Amino acid sequence: MKNDLNEVTVYAPATVANIVCGFDVLGFALSNPCDKLTIRISRTPGVRITNLDSFGLPVEPEQNVIGASLLAMLSETQGHIGFDVDSTKAIKPGSGIGSSAASASGAVVGANSLLGDRFNRQDLIRFAMCGEQVASGVKHADNIAPCIYGGITLIRSSQPVDIVPLDFPPLFVTVIHPQIEVRTSDAREILRTRVLLKDAVRQWGNIAGLVAGFMKGDYNLISRSLEDVIVEPTRSILIPAFSRIKQESMNAGAMGGGISGSGPSIFMFSKEESTAIKVEKAVASVYTEIGLPFHTYVTTISKEGVQIR
Amino acid sequence: MKNDLNEVTVYAPATVANIVCGFDVLGFALSNPCDKLTIRISRTPGVRITNLDSFGLPVEPEQNVIGASLLAMLSETQGHIGFDVDSTKAIKPGSGIGSSAASASGAVVGANSLLGDRFNRQDLIRFAMCGEQVASGVKHADNIAPCIYGGITLIRSSQPVDIVPLDFPPLFVTVIHPQIEVRTSDAREILRTRVLLKDAVRQWGNIAGLVAGFMKGDYNLISRSLEDVIVEPTRSILIPAFSRIKQESMNAGAMGGGISGSGPSIFMFSKEESTAIKVEKAVASVYTEIGLPFHTYVTTISKEGVQIR
Repeated sequence: MKNDLNEVTVYAPATVANIVCGFDVLGFALSNPCDKLTIRISRTPGVRITNLDSFGLPVEPEQNVIGASLLAMLSETQGHIGFDVDSTKAIKPGSGIGSSAASASGAVVGANSLLGDRFNRQDLIRFAMCGEQVASGVKHADNIAPCIYGGITLIRSSQPVDIVPLDFPPLFVTVIHPQIEVRTSDAREILRTRVLLKDAVRQWGNIAGLVAGFMKGDYNLISRSLEDVIVEPTRSILIPAFSRIKQESMNAGAMGGGISGSGPSIFMFSKEESTAIKVEKAVASVYTEIGLPFHTYVTTISKEGVQIR
Repeated sequence: MKNDLNEVTVYAPATVANIVCGFDVLGFALSNPCDKLTIRISRTPGVRITNLDSFGLPVEPEQNVIGASLLAMLSETQGHIGFDVDSTKAIKPGSGIGSSAASASGAVVGANSLLGDRFNRQDLIRFAMCGEQVASGVKHADNIAPCIYGGITLIRSSQPVDIVPLDFPPLFVTVIHPQIEVRTSDAREILRTRVLLKDAVRQWGNIAGLVAGFMKGDYNLISRSLEDVIVEPTRSILIPAFSRIKQESMNAGAMGGGISGSGPSIFMFSKEESTAIKVEKAVASVYTEIGLPFHTYVTTISKEGVQIR
């Protein structure tokens, strides 16, 4: 432990899990919004959390994403140490753009920096998955991996953790967050446990196409591969006007997109920023018309994950 | 039709479909063995086939892979023309390394050359799929696409045809063909029509990893991704000593591998030719021990598809 570094501030980005056809295996980091966490190392064991926002998240460490992640890290750390965390969330919990993953990833990256980077990124993902479990009941890594690595990541396997960063061309992202609540656990429960083999084959053709499209920088291939025949048909029922939002986005020039994570946010890829803004206007007019409060972002894929400043 | 070019000879390579986790969507071309076809254009409509090998395949065009493929092509061709084909197969029918696809692909590439290349590769795949239907009852493209394109191909979709050639690093291939018959139609019938979503997720994590591994030239990632939790557990039952063959191959240093297409051939990837030869010896000793006749090849992934000479 360095005496001259007992406090660190990190910015942890929002993330989009699944990327349409890549259920539970693909995700990417957004340049905006980001949560801010200030972490201090302490000689008092345990984790103490102060929320500097108005979301009213629990502060008991075992019930808090930050707390559970850091307790997992402390369980593998020698010595009588603990952490004090000030959390200022910009990513609304339950929005479907990786709010819990940002808390978990920001906490473990920041704390690890205070510990002289003694853990590697696979360890950090393991710890942060304990935070995700508090939020959703499932130790999934499809938001955590892009939050920590940045860019677009493949989670080939989460046990053991096997993360593959993927190259990608410039892409603009429109995010639409209808202000309704979809619990990740509910969104998981409505999925069928069995799927048709022929649908699975079509899905993995699309996933393979999407990975190849990102790596080749082939926009047309990315666009053709953004099709989900397994999860979207079920989950989209939970999201108001989903098919109209998607259709209006495509009409406005979007390459494609779909549900962000388990929703309710929807994301759309565009090749140009001007198109992404047109998409934002198109979807805003749909939710304005039906009188549903919403929030939008027009941003890019962030090449950086959690940043220490 | 050029008068100075009324005959062409083509060499059509064997192919490996599926590549373990990529059921129905991935395939690659082998440098060896290759079928030889000599095709003459004629003013007499229809297709006439002469088999210059001892496999005893039917010569009635509607019941023959070459015939069905060329009749599909002729149905979209103006004028009173036909083809005479001499077929010399080196790829044993029923071996699971794309024997029917070589006949179909060689025929349509050669005939198209005689027609001044009036059809594009997507058309050729459509025609050749009519040949595959004669052989297996299914219009699949996972052998035809690599046979025509060469290299490793993703068949993102077969209706409409959407083929994505993938970059790949140098790889050596050991093929083991136990001399038993597995009908493609039987191998399809034993597959379950529904699969567990969690298995499908694991499979598409592996497919995404395999595509990324090929494109990055990351041998370890390729090796980790060569896992099939959907098809191999069922189909391998049809192949004698499958798990022992696989285990002995891995012990000899193979990166991984599995059933070629619907079997009975098995393929293994190695990074070095010397390893591929060790793998060949290891698997040969297994089939020698149990007294099963077999044939082996040690070869590479061919960057060329059907070649006109």
